[in-house]
Amino acid sequence: MHTVRVNLGPRAYDIAVTSNDPSGVGPFACRCVPKSTAAIVIGDTNVESHVQRVREQLAANGFRTDTSLVPAGESSKNLFSAAFLFDKLADMTADRQTLVVAVGGGVVGDLAGFVAATYNRGLPLLMVPTTLLAMVDSSVGGKTGVNHPKGKNLIGAFYQPAGVWIDTAFLTTLPDREYRSGLAEVVKYGVILDHELFAFLEANVAPILARDPTAVRHIVARSCRLKADVVEQDEREETGLRAVLNYGHTFAHAFETVGGYGAWLHGEAVAAGMVCAAKLAERLGRVGPELGDRQAKLLEAFGLPTTAKPEWGVDTLLDVMRRDKKAEAGKLRFVLPSRLGHVELVGDVPERVVREVLAECQR
Amino acid sequence: MHTVRVNLGPRAYDIAVTSNDPSGVGPFACRCVPKSTAAIVIGDTNVESHVQRVREQLAANGFRTDTSLVPAGESSKNLFSAAFLFDKLADMTADRQTLVVAVGGGVVGDLAGFVAATYNRGLPLLMVPTTLLAMVDSSVGGKTGVNHPKGKNLIGAFYQPAGVWIDTAFLTTLPDREYRSGLAEVVKYGVILDHELFAFLEANVAPILARDPTAVRHIVARSCRLKADVVEQDEREETGLRAVLNYGHTFAHAFETVGGYGAWLHGEAVAAGMVCAAKLAERLGRVGPELGDRQAKLLEAFGLPTTAKPEWGVDTLLDVMRRDKKAEAGKLRFVLPSRLGHVELVGDVPERVVREVLAECQR
Repeated sequence: MHTVRVNLGPRAYDIAVTSNDPSGVGPFACRCVPKSTAAIVIGDTNVESHVQRVREQLAANGFRTDTSLVPAGESSKNLFSAAFLFDKLADMTADRQTLVVAVGGGVVGDLAGFVAATYNRGLPLLMVPTTLLAMVDSSVGGKTGVNHPKGKNLIGAFYQPAGVWIDTAFLTTLPDREYRSGLAEVVKYGVILDHELFAFLEANVAPILARDPTAVRHIVARSCRLKADVVEQDEREETGLRAVLNYGHTFAHAFETVGGYGAWLHGEAVAAGMVCAAKLAERLGRVGPELGDRQAKLLEAFGLPTTAKPEWGVDTLLDVMRRDKKAEAGKLRFVLPSRLGHVELVGDVPERVVREVLAECQR
Repeated sequence: MHTVRVNLGPRAYDIAVTSNDPSGVGPFACRCVPKSTAAIVIGDTNVESHVQRVREQLAANGFRTDTSLVPAGESSKNLFSAAFLFDKLADMTADRQTLVVAVGGGVVGDLAGFVAATYNRGLPLLMVPTTLLAMVDSSVGGKTGVNHPKGKNLIGAFYQPAGVWIDTAFLTTLPDREYRSGLAEVVKYGVILDHELFAFLEANVAPILARDPTAVRHIVARSCRLKADVVEQDEREETGLRAVLNYGHTFAHAFETVGGYGAWLHGEAVAAGMVCAAKLAERLGRVGPELGDRQAKLLEAFGLPTTAKPEWGVDTLLDVMRRDKKAEAGKLRFVLPSRLGHVELVGDVPERVVREVLAECQR
């Protein structure tokens, strides 16, 4: 088992990265939250069997357990589902030591994390991501939240988990499209922080697509370490440093909002968003065409989209982008590469250039 | 103007305590949140004129402003009102610098604070309390939240404001019952932390009830300082120290929950709760009868209730108390005095004794 430590002072926690160790989660939970004696295991209808197995392991380690399933899909990530889970916690007479266990992908992690952050002003949280995207991204770093009709993750809180348990065996049942979607975020880490990871991905497309456990553990643990490094330096997205993680995401959130949550998987939107961001950097004279070309080639090798859908109007997309959390006073800001493995936050980008990029990406 | 500094490192903020200085709030807001250019002023229908005046002052200091009113009363403190305010913020294209200004009593402060804590994972918050209770208690310390049918403040977050603006002139229009309710929390500070404040209250009942500005500024600033001292040492109620502020509150929350939110004002419930807590301390041999007698006499002088309503069943009250945030694994814990000006957190109190106290207080 590989352990990635997220050093956040009083909120520090461990990410365990392992393969095929179903009974490991119980002792790990006991180590993360020694004072907890009760737990609610939250998942969605796609991962019901994983939820039951995690529950059994917690019960075997002395926890009084309950479970709660929400319908699978992004449409569950809203205030109504949160209210349903608040009711469930109240029914089980949860106290401040009751452990919330999130088993599933990003939707379950964000939703259960938000519930843990706000019930009784904070319950301990154990993340058990079952998708590649959740393993390398949403379960690490403390972002929790639900969607609002006017914007993704518009309601939420920064809230660190007590621990993250990653077993790559969960990936064996993951649909191919979801697995590829997770790879988009791994590519992102290469572009923004680690040209060696990027080169590893280019050199190992076949074993990665075949979900070879050694290759997968390497890219998962490396992605978690890179994200943890950033989060440690800018826990609440205040200094601008954490914003590098949003490479491609201003475009991606607009695609998701305009396309409707669920039309594209998050990683698919991020893939197309990164293509747009690289084009924008090139138009602004920040990089040559090589970076965008290598990035597009790798994303295509992973079977990810590299163009936006032509039916999404440029004006509508821009309107959503102006409401982005990274926007300030309506001015557009983007995370753009300056070379492979390095990005910068660029403020006040002319709207005209963004329009040109969106039009080009919709061809 | 008296300033109370709440020292919380990166989350430090000032509480300004002043009298009759309506134009002061604009410059104070600019000082607290120099990067904000837009603000939403949230209040309830009882304080509409205060909301408009605060809005004008912010507009005069360069803020783009909007307002939102919720119906007055505890029944507005729920997830539906929060959702209404989330919509309002989305409509005004709020970004992370948009200032949320809470003008009103504890309900508005807790609700607007929760919305500020969770919209875009955190907007800057300026508290402008207009009731005595909010001035001395709910606007200081970072507790935000909404009610759930199964418990008060069950959904919420710890979230520090950027500043608190207290103008005692707001109190001139406050109904007498609400003013007296606020005095209960001031009495609480005397009992738990400051026997001199307690003696000052005993010696100044008449000027305090007459809302003499000098006397009011003294008790407000002193209460804020005492609360700030505690919050500085235990921001998130983790070490047990902050729990001292909950003196009388385990009983009080049960009275409020069983009686229905709004049957009693919060301070009224706290007054009766403190009487119960003193009786419990006496039965457990922790104090003699004098402390409870002095406390009851002072509360009666302020026109506050000192008995619980007989129609509330002891079993029902106990059931709510076991779900209290301070309970651990269903065991009852209470903050109890050991002498005037000093309290301790007492764990595992026998249920039998609590039953006796509840029965005695309902006579």
